[in-house]
Amino acid sequence: MQKIRLGIVGYGNLGRGVQYAVSQNADMEVVAVFTRRDPSAVKTVLPVRVESVDKMKEYTGKIDVMILCGGSATDLPVQSAQIVKLFNTVDSFDTHAKIPAYYEALDAAAKSGGHVGAMSIGWDPGLFSLARIYFGAALADGSTYTFWGKGVSQGHSDAIRRVAGVKDARQYTVPVKSALERVRRGENPQLTTREKHTRECYVVAEEGADLARIEKEIKEMPDYFADYDTTVHFISEEELKKNHSGIPHGGFVLRSGKSAAENKFLMEFSLKLDSNPEVTSSVLVAYARAVYRLHKEGKTGAVTVFDIAPKYLSPLSEAEQRASLL
Amino acid sequence: MQKIRLGIVGYGNLGRGVQYAVSQNADMEVVAVFTRRDPSAVKTVLPVRVESVDKMKEYTGKIDVMILCGGSATDLPVQSAQIVKLFNTVDSFDTHAKIPAYYEALDAAAKSGGHVGAMSIGWDPGLFSLARIYFGAALADGSTYTFWGKGVSQGHSDAIRRVAGVKDARQYTVPVKSALERVRRGENPQLTTREKHTRECYVVAEEGADLARIEKEIKEMPDYFADYDTTVHFISEEELKKNHSGIPHGGFVLRSGKSAAENKFLMEFSLKLDSNPEVTSSVLVAYARAVYRLHKEGKTGAVTVFDIAPKYLSPLSEAEQRASLL
Repeated sequence: MQKIRLGIVGYGNLGRGVQYAVSQNADMEVVAVFTRRDPSAVKTVLPVRVESVDKMKEYTGKIDVMILCGGSATDLPVQSAQIVKLFNTVDSFDTHAKIPAYYEALDAAAKSGGHVGAMSIGWDPGLFSLARIYFGAALADGSTYTFWGKGVSQGHSDAIRRVAGVKDARQYTVPVKSALERVRRGENPQLTTREKHTRECYVVAEEGADLARIEKEIKEMPDYFADYDTTVHFISEEELKKNHSGIPHGGFVLRSGKSAAENKFLMEFSLKLDSNPEVTSSVLVAYARAVYRLHKEGKTGAVTVFDIAPKYLSPLSEAEQRASLL
Repeated sequence: MQKIRLGIVGYGNLGRGVQYAVSQNADMEVVAVFTRRDPSAVKTVLPVRVESVDKMKEYTGKIDVMILCGGSATDLPVQSAQIVKLFNTVDSFDTHAKIPAYYEALDAAAKSGGHVGAMSIGWDPGLFSLARIYFGAALADGSTYTFWGKGVSQGHSDAIRRVAGVKDARQYTVPVKSALERVRRGENPQLTTREKHTRECYVVAEEGADLARIEKEIKEMPDYFADYDTTVHFISEEELKKNHSGIPHGGFVLRSGKSAAENKFLMEFSLKLDSNPEVTSSVLVAYARAVYRLHKEGKTGAVTVFDIAPKYLSPLSEAEQRASLL
């Protein structure tokens, strides 16, 4: 069997995760990793060719799908529309407010190149989006809730690190259990930002820094912390390394509603992940399979998880799917 | 806006549920209910025309999708391939072992009639099947578990009613909590039938019946009870009516696995339903929307939940879906 030939663009946590995930799928292989760094300086977790991004063009016809592992802030908005002209792509673009514009740009570029570009793939957006659309369609009269955590938020950890006197930090987003329980009981509550999540910060301060001032600055930071009940724990660098070096995450999508006959329903999807980027990667790889198949069928343009029938994701044949999974 | 015009074939719990569910979806309407009984004897939960099944042909061009609400044992295997020649259809066929043969027959008939026939729609098969295929694709190295309940099994209740001396009965399928917890802890246990579910039976015996014999016959009944830890409670007819007249159900699909870097993941989907047929109906109605749209795009043949992209289910436009649900 001819394997699906993948490229990985960008080699951070996500790129490493993709390489690991591909090793668990017998129908795929990674042909090359592309980096903006000096290729010889990139140490991969499994053996693979590493190339400069400038060499990407030479791989036309040798790679079926490029998995874009850059960040949503600066990498993907520039890269995806360029790369999709040459290759099918999958990315994890997750800046919610910019999704419509990103879609339009990717769609136009993908169509002009005759490729498929799958965007916003991962667990949120991604699997959680699927739960939201399926639950909403299956229960027309209801309310949908998304809770995140307990898990590390990279963005919030970075925000703390920018406070003067902070050496390092780790921030956990924590869903409020009582709010989750109210949803599960079918109360259909209106929940404020503060009622849904709390924020727990583990902070390593520099020698002699003013801890009270740091704590105040964190707690009052607009957008990031001001709207939440935030707890700040000052800990040593050793403790941070020992107890907070993982990147766990998870969350819940719930829909609570009722039938026209007033019978109550609850649907709940939850994830618990020891490694946030490795699950995102694993989903990216499954959607690379779908993109490969869609492109073979003649499809072009941008697609999201909403546009892709589940059959395209599974390594099983359609008959096997019906016999064993339906 | 032209509404999607639906027909309901068969008017039991499922048919009533479909009528209720359509009343919650502004883009659809029920044109007529078709029954094998005397139409004048059918009392509907909301006002609607009731016709004899013999009149179905007269509705060609007046109904976009027929929702087949008959049973899987005898109704659907006969009806679906006939009706799909005249109309698009949605059904809840759930005899797992016969799905491949049913698919082939429906597919051939649907293609010959130029229609779409969506089969095995509901929550299991249906939403649970979706969880199994998505979870399996997203976590290549893991084990998937399905638990049902706590909920009423109509088939098992019927089986008890066939025991001599039994006047009425209700059977609950109950997932074993400790087994569920082992899966959630990531133990990836091998679970026997007995370890996953217990069966609780509430039985109304006839005057003077031999209760010990009834209990023994139930517990030793092959296929239905012999492989389970079964509890039999004898209760009065009044108690059965008062405490066991609902048709609640629910269940869990879990996938536990690990990345190639040995990080653990858990995905869980659960449902809690006060009315089993009303949720099945609600899902049937969402898929009727999808079938209508697929047929408009020129699609023909049999389809399952695996073949249908989620975008077809939602009443929102694709741009709205991306902006609000992704």
